[in-house]
Amino acid sequence: MMKTMDDLFLMTLKDIYYAERQLLKALPKMSRAAQSAELKQAFKEHKDQTEGQIERLQQVFQILGKRAQGQTCEAIQGLIQEGEELLEEAPQPSAVRDAGLIATGQAIEHYEMARYGALATWAEAQKQTEIAELLHATLEEEKATDALLTKVATKSVHQEALRAG
Amino acid sequence: MMKTMDDLFLMTLKDIYYAERQLLKALPKMSRAAQSAELKQAFKEHKDQTEGQIERLQQVFQILGKRAQGQTCEAIQGLIQEGEELLEEAPQPSAVRDAGLIATGQAIEHYEMARYGALATWAEAQKQTEIAELLHATLEEEKATDALLTKVATKSVHQEALRAG
Repeated sequence: MMKTMDDLFLMTLKDIYYAERQLLKALPKMSRAAQSAELKQAFKEHKDQTEGQIERLQQVFQILGKRAQGQTCEAIQGLIQEGEELLEEAPQPSAVRDAGLIATGQAIEHYEMARYGALATWAEAQKQTEIAELLHATLEEEKATDALLTKVATKSVHQEALRAG
Repeated sequence: MMKTMDDLFLMTLKDIYYAERQLLKALPKMSRAAQSAELKQAFKEHKDQTEGQIERLQQVFQILGKRAQGQTCEAIQGLIQEGEELLEEAPQPSAVRDAGLIATGQAIEHYEMARYGALATWAEAQKQTEIAELLHATLEEEKATDALLTKVATKSVHQEALRAG
């Protein structure tokens, strides 16, 4: 039963912890599925970053004196499933598939931004400065990844997809 | 089979069309579940806005000469399911439940922003000016709703939740 802001915080923390670990498994597949070398690299780097983000979440659990534990997050499952359907619909590497992979990646980043944004706001309101700083560090990385994906899209993928399509 | 940017665009358009129609059904439940009058009103207003956004999507289908048609969007299903779980965990109206409802609403807005952002970028790249304008109009509304929810949270809900919790 959820009664206090601490309960809500912990529930949301477990949700994003589960989501990050699912994403850690999905990112190498997304990197392999990409055609553009730049996009492959972007997904690969975000996988390394995700490992660091998982460690930060473990630190937050530790500060709270709780065991790091995930809780099934239907949203990330749905997002990853949409990515898998894209690969079924576009079974061959192509610029169009890359554009779809970028859009999937950005939808995932946006989900994470919403979750980390809420968690950071709640931590600040409760004067949990150390936790808020950890969450903000990850939030900034997610925003940077979203911006990087936009750059990759604008630079190469879309142009090629338009030529092909 | 998805081969061209037009295919990817249409697939994503069907995804967000389905998502908006699911959201139209979920928003009255979210409004009823809210305790704060301000939050109830915010969800009610976003329901009316969502009706207009669905009409814009129908216009986009029409410009493309396609039938307006949804395609199951697992991401929105997951997001709405997370909202339902929140209401199960917090069965009584409370400031904490409101904080959770706001976070759910913002996660949904972020998903929509990602989708409309990708669609608008693709439409612009293909010089589909009229379509890009329709999508941008909705994108701005989604951003405004996200900002409004942040305002509602900061103004009242969190403060009360902290006092209670």
